[in-house]
Amino acid sequence: MNKFLKTLIAGATLAAVAGTASAQQFKPEDQIQWRQSAYQVMAWNMQRIKFNVEGQYNKDEVVKAANTIAAIANSGMGSLYGPGTDKGKGWHNTAVKPAFFTNGQKVGELAMAFTKEANEMSKVAAAGDAAAAKAQFGKLGQTCKACHDDFKAKD
Amino acid sequence: MNKFLKTLIAGATLAAVAGTASAQQFKPEDQIQWRQSAYQVMAWNMQRIKFNVEGQYNKDEVVKAANTIAAIANSGMGSLYGPGTDKGKGWHNTAVKPAFFTNGQKVGELAMAFTKEANEMSKVAAAGDAAAAKAQFGKLGQTCKACHDDFKAKD
Repeated sequence: MNKFLKTLIAGATLAAVAGTASAQQFKPEDQIQWRQSAYQVMAWNMQRIKFNVEGQYNKDEVVKAANTIAAIANSGMGSLYGPGTDKGKGWHNTAVKPAFFTNGQKVGELAMAFTKEANEMSKVAAAGDAAAAKAQFGKLGQTCKACHDDFKAKD
Repeated sequence: MNKFLKTLIAGATLAAVAGTASAQQFKPEDQIQWRQSAYQVMAWNMQRIKFNVEGQYNKDEVVKAANTIAAIANSGMGSLYGPGTDKGKGWHNTAVKPAFFTNGQKVGELAMAFTKEANEMSKVAAAGDAAAAKAQFGKLGQTCKACHDDFKAKD
């Protein structure tokens, strides 16, 4: 399976259409709560990185934060967008737009870009250069924003 | 710094006493919400592993799940137990018991045991043997339970 196809699957489209094992296994409200939790864990770690690249740089903190984001990026969150999760409540009502479930190619592209930059953030963090980490943090943030702009409803 | 001391820090005690950079930076309600989110992401991934070791084993799924748990185990969650987080609400009222904040050595030991077994789960998952994964999943679950028994209030 090529990388693009893999990412399409990770990116929820095929999961949403066909239903993965875990999508079939887990209740829609659990899937929504878990994906909302995963985004919060990423938000925590993005803020940790921001705090470091804008202030006193602590390599160990940035490594931990970047590795956590990368692990979630590679976790297969697509399976948390299974059938019946287009509406409903986890911790709160889902913010996903209906278009997420009908724009598989775009979702896949955005997911692939995010995963690529998250993995790169992890590598850059390990190298320990604060300026490079700041630049990569900016790139990573752009891939979050790109998906939010298209597929996350405003508060 | 030796491994035990590192884990003590990861295990929240020194973070709670001295306040780490992120504990000082982030609001108590954010710290509580983020740690509750992190536990939910671990719950999702524990259930994914359970589903695989009790049913049809998919190595790739277990690897992703185990790596996500290990990354969170190594993320430095101790910093999310900063001053003012012994009570209060994230997604819901915190379930942490007051004793968590006054039993540093025990918390450190439990955190070290959990991180050890989470890292081992990741290695075992990569090796791909279903029976070994099931055994390690059991060990890992025991380290979760040990901490819940002592420091998590019942619903």
